[in-house]
Amino acid sequence: MINKEIWLDENHENSRYGLKGKILIKKKSSFQDICILESDDFGRALMLDGCWMACDKDEKYYHECLVHPAISSLNKKLNILIIGGGDGGTARECLKYKSVKNVDLVEIDEEVINLSKKYLPLISNNCWNDKRLNIYIDDGVNWVKKNKNNIYDAILVDSSDPSEYSMNLFSEEFYINCKKILENDGIFATQSESPESFKKIHLNIIKTIKNVFERSSTMYGFVPFYPSGIWSWTFASKRNDSEFLHNINKEIIKIEESCEIWNLNYQRGGFNMQPNKISKQLKEKNV
Amino acid sequence: MINKEIWLDENHENSRYGLKGKILIKKKSSFQDICILESDDFGRALMLDGCWMACDKDEKYYHECLVHPAISSLNKKLNILIIGGGDGGTARECLKYKSVKNVDLVEIDEEVINLSKKYLPLISNNCWNDKRLNIYIDDGVNWVKKNKNNIYDAILVDSSDPSEYSMNLFSEEFYINCKKILENDGIFATQSESPESFKKIHLNIIKTIKNVFERSSTMYGFVPFYPSGIWSWTFASKRNDSEFLHNINKEIIKIEESCEIWNLNYQRGGFNMQPNKISKQLKEKNV
Repeated sequence: MINKEIWLDENHENSRYGLKGKILIKKKSSFQDICILESDDFGRALMLDGCWMACDKDEKYYHECLVHPAISSLNKKLNILIIGGGDGGTARECLKYKSVKNVDLVEIDEEVINLSKKYLPLISNNCWNDKRLNIYIDDGVNWVKKNKNNIYDAILVDSSDPSEYSMNLFSEEFYINCKKILENDGIFATQSESPESFKKIHLNIIKTIKNVFERSSTMYGFVPFYPSGIWSWTFASKRNDSEFLHNINKEIIKIEESCEIWNLNYQRGGFNMQPNKISKQLKEKNV
Repeated sequence: MINKEIWLDENHENSRYGLKGKILIKKKSSFQDICILESDDFGRALMLDGCWMACDKDEKYYHECLVHPAISSLNKKLNILIIGGGDGGTARECLKYKSVKNVDLVEIDEEVINLSKKYLPLISNNCWNDKRLNIYIDDGVNWVKKNKNNIYDAILVDSSDPSEYSMNLFSEEFYINCKKILENDGIFATQSESPESFKKIHLNIIKTIKNVFERSSTMYGFVPFYPSGIWSWTFASKRNDSEFLHNINKEIIKIEESCEIWNLNYQRGGFNMQPNKISKQLKEKNV
């Protein structure tokens, strides 16, 4: 059975996006159903609770856009917090920077890390062996509550869609605690869902972050294997000056060269790609 | 059978994108298989030869981006040619402009127009009754060959993916003939496929158009129901000055207000959203 060729689909509001291939592993952890597919044309693909998280061929559309708008705009020795990101893709992009001295990765589900280590080597690019990376198995919500003020230069929230165990990662209290542990000139970044297939959640994230932080801005981009193919990432800062998201990292040329999707042009474009209907709704609601 | 709830998928390189619903009509024309679905959550959806063309909920992502970058940059009485576009979505967007005085729509497959008139009223928005619209059942390739020089202010190529009967719409000869019948200050526009799922064709379109026209530029945007969800439109001009794609139409505020996806910001963003790997390949090939 396990070697049979099948279609594995993510179903969303009576639409579906599927990849053809063979199941490598299917497992129920304490938190969720984990499934890894050896797909015929898209490499290996990770599904959690029926939702695509990453696939070898297209994951860079997601991970590069969560990491580089934040990290490339900072230029000092960096201490980074990743919440979620158990597949290693976000850590991999962070660790490209020599200026990154420490990454704390806080993942609630150890099984995701274990299976990613074993089955998804292309996504992590062996980041697990980098001495700058520290793994903590913990709930991100607790982590930001219990940690000291002003210790991280960047906080990257690489969460799944809101669910029973991840919904607090989209709460005002969580954002307030992230702000508390963020350095004064640091950047907070979170995936902020699809303006098309998760419109209500998307608008709510933008609104809540705007209430909590002094500055915030949302970038839109392509993620072919997520519902609607449109995704967004929202960046925020305690600072209220024009330096926010200005690109100054000295390693920027090397980083651009290393990326498959992201570059500074793509980033500039993405911050303008808000669909008109979303812009109208945000104006109406005075967000 | 015809009223049974089914999944209808477009299959592309062992991935699939499907909508759930009931088949309204399935027919074989002289050129292709035509199928219209009453989907559960995305409205009515048109499929030609197994490929999604349009659906009520998301078609504006496509049609607005083919039309407005071109037409909004022109500011005089306009004579427009649409090649393909039998569902009426492209004509609908053109006819929003009072400055548009005439639209010639040249569609090879009369059956697509007939079925769209009957089953897809939300996509055409009744453009068929607008006296400025003239329908010609003809091959677009012949049309641009036989027409006089310099008669159209805009040419919009709204074709399906290259196939037996549409592949000549992607040839150098076709582009040369389009240039010939285009006004000196006119704009040529064509859908230019996905940089992800039709990469080779996409690169070839950009290269060929660049060879034929004095100026050209490619916009990227979201189309949730097309393979990869990333799409592109390429715009070109005979003129070699800075006026190319500068937005000057006096109706622009009204047009922006009427659009669901496109606005000038979105457009500016889209012209920057070329994935880095595509930019690298175009540089390598000296395109």
